[in-house]
Amino acid sequence: MARTQNGESVLTRAVRLIEAFEPGEEWLSVSVLARRSGLHVATASRLISELTTHGWLERNSDRSVRLGLRLWEAAARASSTLSLREAAMPPLEALQAQVRQHTQLGVLDGEEVLFLERLSAPDAVVNFTRIAGRLSLHASSSGLVLLAHAPPAFQESVISSHRERFTTDTPVQESHLREILANIRRRGSVYCPGYLHPEAAGIAAPVFQDDTVRAAVSVVLPRSERAQQWEPAVRMAASLISRRLSAPPNGVINQ
Amino acid sequence: MARTQNGESVLTRAVRLIEAFEPGEEWLSVSVLARRSGLHVATASRLISELTTHGWLERNSDRSVRLGLRLWEAAARASSTLSLREAAMPPLEALQAQVRQHTQLGVLDGEEVLFLERLSAPDAVVNFTRIAGRLSLHASSSGLVLLAHAPPAFQESVISSHRERFTTDTPVQESHLREILANIRRRGSVYCPGYLHPEAAGIAAPVFQDDTVRAAVSVVLPRSERAQQWEPAVRMAASLISRRLSAPPNGVINQ
Repeated sequence: MARTQNGESVLTRAVRLIEAFEPGEEWLSVSVLARRSGLHVATASRLISELTTHGWLERNSDRSVRLGLRLWEAAARASSTLSLREAAMPPLEALQAQVRQHTQLGVLDGEEVLFLERLSAPDAVVNFTRIAGRLSLHASSSGLVLLAHAPPAFQESVISSHRERFTTDTPVQESHLREILANIRRRGSVYCPGYLHPEAAGIAAPVFQDDTVRAAVSVVLPRSERAQQWEPAVRMAASLISRRLSAPPNGVINQ
Repeated sequence: MARTQNGESVLTRAVRLIEAFEPGEEWLSVSVLARRSGLHVATASRLISELTTHGWLERNSDRSVRLGLRLWEAAARASSTLSLREAAMPPLEALQAQVRQHTQLGVLDGEEVLFLERLSAPDAVVNFTRIAGRLSLHASSSGLVLLAHAPPAFQESVISSHRERFTTDTPVQESHLREILANIRRRGSVYCPGYLHPEAAGIAAPVFQDDTVRAAVSVVLPRSERAQQWEPAVRMAASLISRRLSAPPNGVINQ
């Protein structure tokens, strides 16, 4: 692999450049991209030019840069997220049609939840998730569900590490977290009032594939006495997705 | 840019390797990836190792390789497809709930339609599209809508080039295509019975942003006398998405 003076490869620099975009950002200037990825402007410019020829980046008339359609296509077409998402969409849509609030699908990546999908109602409550966005495990309903079914050693490392307090209700004490995780394994779902935002509540349930938890389905809705009534509906959606993952639908011809 | 003996950069090789995955494929062996991307196995292995450390590729215990979650995340989080998709989802879902067949969103890329989204009913008719899949412009309803609103020189180049005949009803004659395109601009939608498959029909309508056609909404349903009745519903969904693109919804807090 060709390496630069400090031992870093061109490929690693290109990866860092592409990963410099934050959720929701579209156009960035070359200088911002160079600064965020720790590259000289000249180096960043050369990489940007080459990635532009492949359609992985796109340039505006003012020379600012965004991620290109071909990068999206390459990443989307064969990835394992696509099959999970395709299995999940019909139950997610049915759940969203009932709850009429944010409905989302998240997976465990590192020590966070990564959200693969979010369906929203225009008038839904505040929500901190985004497609391809991330949240802490201990403070989000999806994260707690994924943590409850993670390997014990991983659970211990998260439980014993520093945890951010987002509201007065965020569970940060070890004993409280252990109780929540045990409850999730017993009940098959979790209700999280005000853990991330004082006025919102989350409900999540696990999606299984071959006896392993592959994802979490969750809804985010206004915190109220009635919010918890949606727990069975969230469990049902998760269970439908689990069934679709185990027996993918046939009879549809795709090329 | 570091270049190999034949003048090709490491970055270009990595792009080719990642783009070697075809729609719907998950795990590929190193030798298949090397062959498809025209690389020596040793070169492919080195690139795969480096991309694996960044989470852009993932390795199975049998050493086969798939696209990684981090690549999907990087591509999904900031791309322009995400804002288009977010604006499109509620009307697409509403349309799919009515038609109960495949409902999709496509954009023009090169001389093809690239599909950004597809919602399906489990018992829906045959369909040749996939998320991140592509179709010819002249034979698909989405493609014809995008072509009808493309720059005239581009339209001429597509009309005068070779066109594949998928069924006896695929429009391949220049005069027929010109008539279809003129009809689309007048009617605001198109009905395509049997163009791609003898038993299926497509209906599509254009999505506008700032007086430019940005995408096409389409449904694929069984070919029948009643199929065309859905044309107004498809036009309505396209028009709702156009309005949402011009005035993005406010009041939702995202971090």
